[in-house]
Amino acid sequence: MILASRNAHKLGEVRQILGRDDLELSPDGVGDPVEDDVTFAGNALIKARFVAERTGSAVIADDSGLCVDVLGGAPGVFSARWAGRHGADVENLELLLNQLADVRDEHRAAKFVCAAVYVEPGGREVIATGTMRGQLLREPRGEGGFGYDPIFLPDGHELSAAELSAEQKNAISHRGHAFRALRAELDRLGLG
Amino acid sequence: MILASRNAHKLGEVRQILGRDDLELSPDGVGDPVEDDVTFAGNALIKARFVAERTGSAVIADDSGLCVDVLGGAPGVFSARWAGRHGADVENLELLLNQLADVRDEHRAAKFVCAAVYVEPGGREVIATGTMRGQLLREPRGEGGFGYDPIFLPDGHELSAAELSAEQKNAISHRGHAFRALRAELDRLGLG
Repeated sequence: MILASRNAHKLGEVRQILGRDDLELSPDGVGDPVEDDVTFAGNALIKARFVAERTGSAVIADDSGLCVDVLGGAPGVFSARWAGRHGADVENLELLLNQLADVRDEHRAAKFVCAAVYVEPGGREVIATGTMRGQLLREPRGEGGFGYDPIFLPDGHELSAAELSAEQKNAISHRGHAFRALRAELDRLGLG
Repeated sequence: MILASRNAHKLGEVRQILGRDDLELSPDGVGDPVEDDVTFAGNALIKARFVAERTGSAVIADDSGLCVDVLGGAPGVFSARWAGRHGADVENLELLLNQLADVRDEHRAAKFVCAAVYVEPGGREVIATGTMRGQLLREPRGEGGFGYDPIFLPDGHELSAAELSAEQKNAISHRGHAFRALRAELDRLGLG
């Protein structure tokens, strides 16, 4: 089974959550589809179908982002390119803080959302989602995690998502919830 | 009666729509409140109440912005500071185009929204709103208007909001609709 990703760190996480040591990253040269859907599940399916068609293997993929209440759910699927180009984590985070500079604490609720999908070539598709609710901070805190983690305080916690250990974060994170839900659904269906 | 604004161009527009030649801009030195509400009407009321308290006059104010469907209504009240600092029209517009670069035409619907309010010192408050629906373009078109006008194609029109004449734009714009609705309500109430 393939994880549609080039991120070895994510592979380790997902192997652990799914309990599948045979999960592998996408083969080199398989290419990248345009992820132009407007939902997390839609973009995860674009990635998974693309790799499944080209490899003939069953594929796992995910898409995730930060949804800010006062922005009606944005950045959402645009989280990774919020500052205008892909993968500029610090620019994305600083832009969001500047956009919301005048927003009072009672309006700074947000959630991380993850859609995790399983796709068989020409066959069955399974979708699972997970969320982690919290509050946006005014300054980054912590060195762990990535993306918007340093400005996100998960509900019920005193540490930002970038200050939690990997184990603590996996236990409560949108990605942890989504992949555990996907595993449960695959087990129920006898797939994977 | 005072228009809570420093924009002489807006004063001319609103005088014409309201049919009030005695409308004047805020006096110099009246200062600026923090517009930290999360709705257009709330921010317009903050501006109008601030000037009404300091001048003892009845005050008209408005707040407006661009709401993109696929962003859940953002930029919304953050339209003027979308790129992180106030009033950078070209930066705001270019950031939005880059954020939505992969969004297909069928998902590029948006609307301009305006809330226009009337506030008497310690007295009555009236709120009216107006909208203009349309589609986001992929490149700016036209030299007129301001803000996001060059990338907004109003529904039923072939010209961008920056290519329309001032008269054409006033007839269909969110601001035109809101101020005409406000005038009608003030007439009905015998105010203004």
